[in-house]
Amino acid sequence: MTLDEVNSLAPDAFVDSFGQIAERCPWVATKAGSARPYGSRDHMVERFQAAIASAARADQEALILAHPDLAGRAALAGTVAEASIGEQSGAGLDHLSRTELDRFEALNARYRARFGFPFILAVKGATRHQIIEAFEQRLEGGREEEFHAALSQVMRIVRFRIEDRVDE
Amino acid sequence: MTLDEVNSLAPDAFVDSFGQIAERCPWVATKAGSARPYGSRDHMVERFQAAIASAARADQEALILAHPDLAGRAALAGTVAEASIGEQSGAGLDHLSRTELDRFEALNARYRARFGFPFILAVKGATRHQIIEAFEQRLEGGREEEFHAALSQVMRIVRFRIEDRVDE
Repeated sequence: MTLDEVNSLAPDAFVDSFGQIAERCPWVATKAGSARPYGSRDHMVERFQAAIASAARADQEALILAHPDLAGRAALAGTVAEASIGEQSGAGLDHLSRTELDRFEALNARYRARFGFPFILAVKGATRHQIIEAFEQRLEGGREEEFHAALSQVMRIVRFRIEDRVDE
Repeated sequence: MTLDEVNSLAPDAFVDSFGQIAERCPWVATKAGSARPYGSRDHMVERFQAAIASAARADQEALILAHPDLAGRAALAGTVAEASIGEQSGAGLDHLSRTELDRFEALNARYRARFGFPFILAVKGATRHQIIEAFEQRLEGGREEEFHAALSQVMRIVRFRIEDRVDE
């Protein structure tokens, strides 16, 4: 889509088109859309990220919780935002061996038990090895350290999704 | 230092001992110290990280700005928190070639020009190659994405410094 097309969408149509840019949280698109017209695609990214940054803590937590586990059952079953499926399969997470799947399942469970939210990593361009290394490193973190890492990764995923959908 | 010793320090002595845990921002130790006694070292880490997470945005920005550039002149000249010098030399950043120094200087300048604050990465355990790779990747980010990544890295550095100073 071109930036002109993005800027000329009616509010409802904008949320229909971009409501899943932030995983199953269309309120982000509603808030970011009201800042149109965007002067550039970077500006559009900034408005989506600012909508998340300025949200109440409870809404930020809900957005983090809306993300599926990496290589988890929901992603494999396809019951998540369409973009998530593509991102995870792009990193090879839909073609793991039984051993690798068990490894991810154990890491996901430990991470959720420790922090109360899923491990979030923008996996685009990352290898399985890099993902597992980051996972193990971040399992050692403190809760606020991980909360803000998760928020940053959520914003990174938002950026990648906009860059995929809108021409520069 | 043992946890018992940490818990028995008078408030002033606590800030004298831990005022540099958050780079040149003793207000973090003042705030975190009032939550003593800590039940464990992890609990101490949580209180320091929570003090940063709950601070006003302007104070969070000031804390981020207090950090020196990686391999920058301040770190090389030793005019930064003592722990910063050790962390940077631990990653080999005090033994860079002229070409590598120029590379870091260019990256630091681009990052600061783009975001208005220094690139912050907890370099403990990282190689020069990993640091430069992370640097180039994060230079592509949005401002809020980087602000929260920086905040998470600041908290990570705080954790490493407490783990270095206090027995488990």
